[in-house]
Amino acid sequence: MDKARIVEVGPRDGLQNEKGVIPLATKVELVQRLAESGLSTIEAGAFVSPKWVPQMADTAAVLATLDLGGPVHYPVLVPNDWGLDAALEAGVREIAVFGAASEAFSQKNINATISESLKRFESVMHRAQQAGIRVRGYVSCVVGCPYEGEVAPRKVAEVAAELHAMGCYEVSLGDTIGVGTPRQVQAMLEAVMRTVPVERLAGHFHDTYGMAVANIHAAYAAGVRTFDASVAGLGGCPYAQGASGNVATEDVAYLLHGLGVETGIDLSRLVATAWFIADALGRAPASRVAHALGRPA
Amino acid sequence: MDKARIVEVGPRDGLQNEKGVIPLATKVELVQRLAESGLSTIEAGAFVSPKWVPQMADTAAVLATLDLGGPVHYPVLVPNDWGLDAALEAGVREIAVFGAASEAFSQKNINATISESLKRFESVMHRAQQAGIRVRGYVSCVVGCPYEGEVAPRKVAEVAAELHAMGCYEVSLGDTIGVGTPRQVQAMLEAVMRTVPVERLAGHFHDTYGMAVANIHAAYAAGVRTFDASVAGLGGCPYAQGASGNVATEDVAYLLHGLGVETGIDLSRLVATAWFIADALGRAPASRVAHALGRPA
Repeated sequence: MDKARIVEVGPRDGLQNEKGVIPLATKVELVQRLAESGLSTIEAGAFVSPKWVPQMADTAAVLATLDLGGPVHYPVLVPNDWGLDAALEAGVREIAVFGAASEAFSQKNINATISESLKRFESVMHRAQQAGIRVRGYVSCVVGCPYEGEVAPRKVAEVAAELHAMGCYEVSLGDTIGVGTPRQVQAMLEAVMRTVPVERLAGHFHDTYGMAVANIHAAYAAGVRTFDASVAGLGGCPYAQGASGNVATEDVAYLLHGLGVETGIDLSRLVATAWFIADALGRAPASRVAHALGRPA
Repeated sequence: MDKARIVEVGPRDGLQNEKGVIPLATKVELVQRLAESGLSTIEAGAFVSPKWVPQMADTAAVLATLDLGGPVHYPVLVPNDWGLDAALEAGVREIAVFGAASEAFSQKNINATISESLKRFESVMHRAQQAGIRVRGYVSCVVGCPYEGEVAPRKVAEVAAELHAMGCYEVSLGDTIGVGTPRQVQAMLEAVMRTVPVERLAGHFHDTYGMAVANIHAAYAAGVRTFDASVAGLGGCPYAQGASGNVATEDVAYLLHGLGVETGIDLSRLVATAWFIADALGRAPASRVAHALGRPA
């Protein structure tokens, strides 16, 4: 039986983009429920400035409740050396860094060229490797950019190759504004796979235009076996009008199971988790599967 | 440039499954706006018992406002000879009949075996052909059935072949409860394409589990070039818990345009139409694209 891995990004990429700040206890219960649903990698937070991202201010407190040496991986996003210090102190085994495939997005988002932004990670990468910590790399805007429009596959391939060469064990390719369709995703992946082995790639799709599941299927057909997703479709991109967030983990699991692919996920537990966090945020889950299977009795 | 055709089923399959009955004037404006959005086939109503389906009671009045001899096709659903009489009187050029690929669904839904249900259409087909009226055939439950579970592709192929042999110019294959994933859709289409030419097939997908766009992409890859869809995702299947309805026309158009396929549809007009009918029903459009592109100014 074929296998695929879902990287749950709801507690970080999801909650970071939700308006409300949820209590620590709720966040801890969310992460626990996700682990109990069978997810083996759960992005648990970010060591970023609480001034800019108050939703992540309690990352150290969340990590303190987790078994960081156990079978489940809990990566955290780290933008700089200060973030790495905090991650090391918390005892994490994995961090994530990020770059964009669009110059305009990089400039507007972090006020640096793509090349400058990757250079800033050199010291983080070096220190993480010395400490035996795995590093995951994100590339944003791999299909389209809110400022530049279409992004050239060649550009994505360059940035992905650079992150891989710097030592990232996996490069996650993000359609940050969710504009891609399968044809563009295929073309982008063909370019990237010439520079990074497909086993080192992950697909990160947002469902803004309802294309995420089709894009994941296209990426799966191209050989990708790791997908980022966010329970209940948590989060969203602030740059796209009316944007919905990451593709929902339960929709991805439903797709993969329907394709005969093993994920290790217990779908009914996952759907219960989607309702749990949606209730905590005072809204309905953004996924079709959570509604189709319904609120747990 | 490759072309595909979208059959808009919102005014019939969509509204028929909405709880509220909308005023005639709103329905007429909906159909007009859909035609102005570039849709060339719009299912405009059904001649069925108003006792069972009050939403369709004004079908003759809707048809009376339309140019039935013009470039846009306005098929209507017709279950029996009485319905055909009403359709002939209204001057329609195209009707639609239906069968199920699941015995249990056929029994529960219309209290007849599949074979009996098709036999009932023989006289309708014969009279329609004599009157020079095109007949479209629907097959429901082509992947799964709410009573039987999985439906064998062979069964779908049999029913589709029978409708085709009876004289249907096109057979629309419906995943009525929206449970299918691309692998099942591919297997089903492979079986059906051995009995009916792919040019005579249409895909009709519900988005209950969020798989419709991926399934349409899979059907497109298999050679299908006609897809049923419902503006704003109108409608739903009363048999599946929390079911969403037909895939939204605007999501399908976005996919096809992204694949480089010409549909003749003006997406921004179509999205405005989605907001128009959603407002009339007092709810938000069920599509991602309508939200991503936003309410027209």
